Amino acid sequence: MKQQFSSWIKEIQDRICLEVEKADGKEKFLEDRWSRAEGGGGITRVIQNGEVFEKGGVNISEVYGDITPGISSQLKINGDKFFACGISLILHPRSPMVPTVHANYRYFEVYGKDGNVLDSWFGGGADLTPYYLFDEDAIHFHRIHKESCDRFQPGAYARFKKQCDDYFVNTHRGNERRGIGGIFYDHMKPSAVSAPAPSESAGGEVELFAFAQSNGNAFIDAYFPTVEKRKNLPFSDAQKHWQLIRRGRYVEFNLIHDRGTIFGLKSNGRTESILMSLPPEVRFEYNYKPEPNSEEDRLLQILMNPKDWI
Amino acid sequence: MKQQFSSWIKEIQDRICLEVEKADGKEKFLEDRWSRAEGGGGITRVIQNGEVFEKGGVNISEVYGDITPGISSQLKINGDKFFACGISLILHPRSPMVPTVHANYRYFEVYGKDGNVLDSWFGGGADLTPYYLFDEDAIHFHRIHKESCDRFQPGAYARFKKQCDDYFVNTHRGNERRGIGGIFYDHMKPSAVSAPAPSESAGGEVELFAFAQSNGNAFIDAYFPTVEKRKNLPFSDAQKHWQLIRRGRYVEFNLIHDRGTIFGLKSNGRTESILMSLPPEVRFEYNYKPEPNSEEDRLLQILMNPKDWI
Repeated sequence: MKQQFSSWIKEIQDRICLEVEKADGKEKFLEDRWSRAEGGGGITRVIQNGEVFEKGGVNISEVYGDITPGISSQLKINGDKFFACGISLILHPRSPMVPTVHANYRYFEVYGKDGNVLDSWFGGGADLTPYYLFDEDAIHFHRIHKESCDRFQPGAYARFKKQCDDYFVNTHRGNERRGIGGIFYDHMKPSAVSAPAPSESAGGEVELFAFAQSNGNAFIDAYFPTVEKRKNLPFSDAQKHWQLIRRGRYVEFNLIHDRGTIFGLKSNGRTESILMSLPPEVRFEYNYKPEPNSEEDRLLQILMNPKDWI
Repeated sequence: MKQQFSSWIKEIQDRICLEVEKADGKEKFLEDRWSRAEGGGGITRVIQNGEVFEKGGVNISEVYGDITPGISSQLKINGDKFFACGISLILHPRSPMVPTVHANYRYFEVYGKDGNVLDSWFGGGADLTPYYLFDEDAIHFHRIHKESCDRFQPGAYARFKKQCDDYFVNTHRGNERRGIGGIFYDHMKPSAVSAPAPSESAGGEVELFAFAQSNGNAFIDAYFPTVEKRKNLPFSDAQKHWQLIRRGRYVEFNLIHDRGTIFGLKSNGRTESILMSLPPEVRFEYNYKPEPNSEEDRLLQILMNPKDWI
């Protein structure tokens, strides 16, 4: 599974980068290959100052090594060594009419002292962060992800949609969500698929890998048509200003709450690859509040009270 | 001491705000008074879009209540109730030629079940964050603070200067400091002053309070003359750009590492008063590196290897 997942993230990294460059029409990704002293490395691809994308990163990494006390307490895992690989991407469009998007698909293994696999799991998800909310875009994003979940397991979409709403929360701002959600899942083990009792059956693993692949494809279908639809809409300075304020909330979530970011920084990950997720230009203003009943205020209300889009 | 410290922070808040408005010459502070459900409150004063100061906050707060498990583990304190009051300020100038500054002076008490004082201490400090480094400004800032420390205790400046260099560190960026430091001290108890053995003697408390007051005065003398000296210097777009990049590092430190920020957000402090510390406009660019041997690079080298300014 390590090899399979690792090949797949390389393949889908290429596909997603092509989609981004096609939608952008001007800029190309630059690539940095890096290695980690403790084991592993990654391929970081970043696009900056594009026509459509002001900044974006589509990164893969494969890291392994000892489970240090820091990693153990951060990830709540016990064992001797670990292996983790995944793809993580964030795209920050220039226009406030085009939503920011984030997706991540990952696979984890934990080993005992004699190298035996103690545990393994899959995680992933994708979530959308609009600045101006076109309901049909939110519905489209959720519908495509629901279809992927429905093929996998009945009830999975409702569960993963709720987990997404519960995860991307700026708890220090009265439970304001980062965006309008999507799906989020973690610690998905073969036993969750094939049988009620714990099981390392290949069947479960195969299904979970297929689910990751299906979600990766869904992400492409869920996001890029919306980019095409919105990228040429006009916008005002005031609308751009609102985007910069909301990007501030994105920074707050990623640096204060996001487990992936904190794990990366504490496990001596590559800082520039982790923090490529931060938006290019941001504003922090004291006690900024949108006009009541404005479009901006409507978005904020939905971020405080997540909606069922399907 | 509670009452004395509390009166003093109100008085010095007024004095500092007057200095800021005088230096700015255009904008005035707005004031928000707030209260905390669990006990206490504060007075937040914010200036935005000034001529000299793009954003600044000079806040006092006085909070008290139960020592919850969260507060206990965050602050590593044991007891039934606590009282904390202090002033915290950050000033973000518009011009990259004028340094950002932060200062904080605080007093803490911990009580047992029957209301007796189990422990009390003082903390504080001030640190300077230049974007373009005029050595004489750094020397001036450190010299004035050293004079305040020297009046208090021989060797105090060297200790508190080092603690400052050790505290304001973006550990995730290879130990890059936020700025060129100043002084930082915490858990200063009367016993540290009056006698080698632990003691609650009024003498020690009086001296520690006088030290806080002396540092507050020193802050005013250490910073505002530099603002006057630099505020009318011309600067280029490229220099402003560098300031926005460095402000990104300020955001990273405050949200990832700063204990005061994290304590405030976890103890249900007032989010807008805590996050007023964030700079108004910020840029995050992938793997940004200044030109070797440029002025920007010289600053970065000093941030990596703190200097003795005296």
